[in-house]
Amino acid sequence: MKHTLTTLIASALLAANAFSADPLPSWNDAAPKQAITSFVEKVTKEGSADFVPVPERIAVFDNDGCLWAEQPMYFQAFFIFDRIRALAPQHPEWKEKEPFASVLKGDVKSALAGGEKALLEMAMATHAGMTGDEFEKIVSDWIATAKHPKTGKLFTEMVYQPMLELLAYLRDNGFKTFIVSGGGIEFMRPWTERVYGVPPEQVVGSSIKTKYEVVDGKPAIIRLPELNFIDDKAGKPVGIYQHIGRRPIFAAGNSDGDFQMLEWTTAGTGPRFAMIIHHDDATREWAYDRDSHIGKLAKGLDEGPKRGWSIVSMKDDWKTVFPE
Amino acid sequence: MKHTLTTLIASALLAANAFSADPLPSWNDAAPKQAITSFVEKVTKEGSADFVPVPERIAVFDNDGCLWAEQPMYFQAFFIFDRIRALAPQHPEWKEKEPFASVLKGDVKSALAGGEKALLEMAMATHAGMTGDEFEKIVSDWIATAKHPKTGKLFTEMVYQPMLELLAYLRDNGFKTFIVSGGGIEFMRPWTERVYGVPPEQVVGSSIKTKYEVVDGKPAIIRLPELNFIDDKAGKPVGIYQHIGRRPIFAAGNSDGDFQMLEWTTAGTGPRFAMIIHHDDATREWAYDRDSHIGKLAKGLDEGPKRGWSIVSMKDDWKTVFPE
Repeated sequence: MKHTLTTLIASALLAANAFSADPLPSWNDAAPKQAITSFVEKVTKEGSADFVPVPERIAVFDNDGCLWAEQPMYFQAFFIFDRIRALAPQHPEWKEKEPFASVLKGDVKSALAGGEKALLEMAMATHAGMTGDEFEKIVSDWIATAKHPKTGKLFTEMVYQPMLELLAYLRDNGFKTFIVSGGGIEFMRPWTERVYGVPPEQVVGSSIKTKYEVVDGKPAIIRLPELNFIDDKAGKPVGIYQHIGRRPIFAAGNSDGDFQMLEWTTAGTGPRFAMIIHHDDATREWAYDRDSHIGKLAKGLDEGPKRGWSIVSMKDDWKTVFPE
Repeated sequence: MKHTLTTLIASALLAANAFSADPLPSWNDAAPKQAITSFVEKVTKEGSADFVPVPERIAVFDNDGCLWAEQPMYFQAFFIFDRIRALAPQHPEWKEKEPFASVLKGDVKSALAGGEKALLEMAMATHAGMTGDEFEKIVSDWIATAKHPKTGKLFTEMVYQPMLELLAYLRDNGFKTFIVSGGGIEFMRPWTERVYGVPPEQVVGSSIKTKYEVVDGKPAIIRLPELNFIDDKAGKPVGIYQHIGRRPIFAAGNSDGDFQMLEWTTAGTGPRFAMIIHHDDATREWAYDRDSHIGKLAKGLDEGPKRGWSIVSMKDDWKTVFPE
């Protein structure tokens, strides 16, 4: 009985929240904001044909370029390069071996010339060979101090204020918010709760294999240099199926790597919402889309509007970009 | 601000719950019940040295033999056999091919004689080759009507009343409850929310590979006859690391397949709780442990008490076994 009372009061408060002051103050009163709020009002209105029960209010967000910036390269790549520099004394062979040699010389362009294969090799060399607890500490220490070369800000300060508001607004309306990112799952988990309010168990990402072992009487998760899962493109609906086990009703992305996630979300029955952040603000952030080597967005721009997806212009639809 | 108010009221109600009527009425007032309630009181008492913040109150439960029965064979095996019978007309070759031929002849013992390899072969033949949505419907339809051969009850009526109370008690005290089972993840998800109050995204289990495909313009998750992950023994801590991303503080199991999950849970710092259900009630359920072909429990009986794990006797510690 007490349990029911808790639920009733929580529902009443959720309903009250829905009518309080503007929940999205950093969004201009343009089409995307109106589309978001009218979707949320619709699915939370009890008795309406579009009502969605709380447990089914699943919202998924890409991370790189959707919740935080991704230029001039994925922030995880800065982490990888910093780790290579830190580990170099234990790997004298890296001085002669690409792509490590280029990283150590500070030649980012050559280091990345090998494409996905080279990046994967560097990820394995820096993300494996330790326990899960050790890796969590390495990430936590790095993210607390590492700064973006252009802005001089902490990477966690380069999150998008309008998206933080959107995450909170959805949660206040009974949504469970998930991150579904091509980034490393264990690279994100140590800080997503603090920064985004998204707990580790609601983070889906790419991963390497691990094994459980008792080492010197102490149980540990050992991180192995072997790919487990790539959570990108057609991998995103698969990651959602594996981790969440039901289809989201709300999805946000920014690149063609998110296309299948938005497609999968909006192909479900009942009310669905999809949005694409368009990086078109060279003054406050970066402007890139069809020809970018990172966060390429072409299919989404062509197909999205036809499918009823909201295209969010950073330039026109956001009052502010980063938290002040 | 409203959000904070919600949190405050929810906390007040949670605290009120903690002092209400007996939350575990089907448990006798013996050592395991006392250990459970004193652990929960300890970790929820603000200001105490053992206090654990709500987000870290992660509890994991095995399913077969821990939340529902598992004799004379895993309930999922009944599902597999029923599916083989249903699919037989499309597979005339099964009449001559083991282990399918034995299933069709009703010879369960011979069908299972091939051990894990045979079971896996039958699982692939019945769990793959359809979309995720189709499989969910097959499971939902089956679980709604299939009955246990000995008791004549629905399988979902053969859940343990004391464990339903324990799940609810933990949730009322701010715990997030997860299932971590060797059973098929998508075999459990369609009904765990209704039966246990555990939503699909909090179910971890064994899985086959899937792929995302747009078939005739319709996006679908296609289930493939290829093993993805076995969530048993040393696989359980790995499954927890992958899906939950933090170490539980409470774990319940019943067989040596759960040993590593309990070991991993209790090896963390701070207060930890582990319990093993001992099937010692031949009258109301089944009695089996060291020599059982299913749910074998030997190491847990020997090691558990030395490690401070609670051994729960179904016979002595539970007033009732199944819901009435």
